[in-house]
Amino acid sequence: MRSDLPTYTPEEVAKHRTKDTGIWVTYKNSVYDITEYATQHPGGSKIMMAAGGSLEPYWELYAVHKHPGIIGIAEKYRIGNIVEEKSESKGKNINDPYANEPKRNPILIPSSQKPFNAEPPPLLLPEKFLTPNDLFFVRNHLPVPVVDPKSYKLEIGIGDKSKSKLTLNDLKKKFKKVSTTSVVQCAGNRRSEMTKIKTVKGLNWNNAAISNAEWSGATLNDVLLASGIDLDKCSHDHINDILIAYEMNGADIPRDHGYPIRVIIPGIVGARQVKWLNRIYLSKEESTCHWQRKDYKGFNSSIDWHNVNFDTSVAIQQLPVTSAVCEPADGSEIEPGSEDVTVKGYAWSGGGRGIIRVDVSADGGKTWTTAELEPTNQNPYKTWAWTLWEATVPLPENHGGKAEIVCKAIDVSYNVQPDSVEGIWNLRGCLSNAWHRIHIKIPAE
Amino acid sequence: MRSDLPTYTPEEVAKHRTKDTGIWVTYKNSVYDITEYATQHPGGSKIMMAAGGSLEPYWELYAVHKHPGIIGIAEKYRIGNIVEEKSESKGKNINDPYANEPKRNPILIPSSQKPFNAEPPPLLLPEKFLTPNDLFFVRNHLPVPVVDPKSYKLEIGIGDKSKSKLTLNDLKKKFKKVSTTSVVQCAGNRRSEMTKIKTVKGLNWNNAAISNAEWSGATLNDVLLASGIDLDKCSHDHINDILIAYEMNGADIPRDHGYPIRVIIPGIVGARQVKWLNRIYLSKEESTCHWQRKDYKGFNSSIDWHNVNFDTSVAIQQLPVTSAVCEPADGSEIEPGSEDVTVKGYAWSGGGRGIIRVDVSADGGKTWTTAELEPTNQNPYKTWAWTLWEATVPLPENHGGKAEIVCKAIDVSYNVQPDSVEGIWNLRGCLSNAWHRIHIKIPAE
Repeated sequence: MRSDLPTYTPEEVAKHRTKDTGIWVTYKNSVYDITEYATQHPGGSKIMMAAGGSLEPYWELYAVHKHPGIIGIAEKYRIGNIVEEKSESKGKNINDPYANEPKRNPILIPSSQKPFNAEPPPLLLPEKFLTPNDLFFVRNHLPVPVVDPKSYKLEIGIGDKSKSKLTLNDLKKKFKKVSTTSVVQCAGNRRSEMTKIKTVKGLNWNNAAISNAEWSGATLNDVLLASGIDLDKCSHDHINDILIAYEMNGADIPRDHGYPIRVIIPGIVGARQVKWLNRIYLSKEESTCHWQRKDYKGFNSSIDWHNVNFDTSVAIQQLPVTSAVCEPADGSEIEPGSEDVTVKGYAWSGGGRGIIRVDVSADGGKTWTTAELEPTNQNPYKTWAWTLWEATVPLPENHGGKAEIVCKAIDVSYNVQPDSVEGIWNLRGCLSNAWHRIHIKIPAE
Repeated sequence: MRSDLPTYTPEEVAKHRTKDTGIWVTYKNSVYDITEYATQHPGGSKIMMAAGGSLEPYWELYAVHKHPGIIGIAEKYRIGNIVEEKSESKGKNINDPYANEPKRNPILIPSSQKPFNAEPPPLLLPEKFLTPNDLFFVRNHLPVPVVDPKSYKLEIGIGDKSKSKLTLNDLKKKFKKVSTTSVVQCAGNRRSEMTKIKTVKGLNWNNAAISNAEWSGATLNDVLLASGIDLDKCSHDHINDILIAYEMNGADIPRDHGYPIRVIIPGIVGARQVKWLNRIYLSKEESTCHWQRKDYKGFNSSIDWHNVNFDTSVAIQQLPVTSAVCEPADGSEIEPGSEDVTVKGYAWSGGGRGIIRVDVSADGGKTWTTAELEPTNQNPYKTWAWTLWEATVPLPENHGGKAEIVCKAIDVSYNVQPDSVEGIWNLRGCLSNAWHRIHIKIPAE
């Protein structure tokens, strides 16, 4: 506390997020005005992720801040103190079904609180091939269950007959441990682009409802075999790739992501990769569950809620090719007088189809530069991980201080992303994979 | 011959192909003016395929014309005789490498004569699930080889080592005969749409460089096994679907399509489905042949011949999802005063991905109708055949006498076609799969 300085509320701080309003951040109980410093920040525009809020989680993320001098640098920008937030009621409401939610990284940007759904800031995605567990996007339909690892059992069956029950220890000890790096993506990733055209039903995701992790566990095939179910592997060639996973990036799977067991089905929409897995029953009939039969399906753009028939559409399984610009941030300013811009992002396609090219434009899609792809070292027809990419793209000569950056990816089957959202708009806002567009400002020197 | 009527040359007849010039057709040595009759033709606008030329091949195609009264109907439209064409020089030029080309159906529309490349009229494609052999599109790079079935041998090898040689009789007698219905599509199908934007290198195909047939032969796997090569079928799961084919729609494969042996690799671009097959050598390295390494690759739209590098692009194998309107014909008139239009076409996707939906619009893509799909009864992930479709689409209320019909297809992985040609234009004009557009006229009643 410095009593010579004024005191602000978190709400007041939150109003200062841009150059025009001033850029304020907090650290512990101090408030800093970093409007000037933001342009000199060695980490570039990443500091803007903290604008109007706390620096702390970002300093945790970037180890470079973990030295004693850092607060000295900040001190000259100090403008005030923050009022202590009223301590939350200590006694949890035992009637609140959300009373036992896990602790989450405050960096995550929620699209809903109860149930908790959130995505990381897009800028963070291309920084790491494996998304850290606490930054992995979170998609919950209900409160996070509290599962006791000691009493946990996975039941295996076929038709209506139970074949076996496996404990967590069985799954860890009785089967070969297999690891796969695989994307999980929400069917509604990038839904906000559809919302701009016409209302859709669903969480208003930006472009970060997708993450990539290394998953470890037993293979579904090994687990089925141990339960006496021997499938023809050649007829179900994908079965060897499905994991009954108990680890995410080398640690126990966090509660938000399915502790203790989730299924990982590489190349498939997140909705099918069930968390807190209880039962696997093989059936000749498609599951009758709501999410399989009455949701997560696509329709043409002229279908609305008054004429929709979910029975006539095929459930979303493999997702189509997509990509997105993650850096620079949408709406951000790049260095004054720049002649080109370095653009980073991700690309991915369902069904294991590897990414063979990403095209990037800084003139709204008139001219294109081919991006450098980070090698994934995966079979081009079993590329379950995403492909990170980077391109340095010339800015148009007469840009007038702004530019529209666009990216689009091509997969090994030469599938491309559609040009515009209009042609793929659908009432549930799923499958939003049009060319991704962001806008940047280029101040004069 | 009717000496009371004037005599015309085929060139004069060819100038009469529209309502404005009059619609003339020939049958044997007679010329008919069917301008009036064309609107009453029970087969609708299909008669226009013969406009300016001979009716004969179409009468062959549509059995309904094979009755004695048909000439009586035609007689009242007779306007003249056709001069006999000078009989072609009987002695073939033995120095012409194209002296031994097969006889072809004159209905085919050539995009080049030597080598012969041709597609059927698009109107014919959705008429039959299996394209008749003499209407199947033809793609040749060179003269059609004359192969003696008695001396024919297929050589099998691995690395640089020959393992066996099989005669045609061996292939037919020693292996189980397997049949597969599979599309063959040229990488340049629909190239003419790219040509309209900017010159590309390649044959100027319309939308019918694609056909669908039932192929029969031995499986590649059986043939390899007999040569002592035992591949892990689960690692190469597609190998069971590859045919060493000797029959096309139940007959010997015609010379234009690879007699006596071609390979059928379902779900893959036509360029890899080698005709007049001589050798199969397994290799860990991609073939160094021109067509694999220096052609049939995609690039972004800003790459031209001065900056292209074929080494940086991946060879086209699986093709992306496509569809096209085949009926009505582009530029045709539909029935005066129509309030809707019945549209037919094909849809297909590479890699066996079944078609789950086709959207059709009669207002240039503003509103969409979902088409009825003809069932293919194939595994949705091994759909090698095309999907024919039909939709009756309302015409816009104030159409002003014309309409733009558009179609686009969605495959089981929810891949879609791109909106426009601009974003996928490439210097070789391959992979032209934008929304397909045609224009029709709607005369007032």
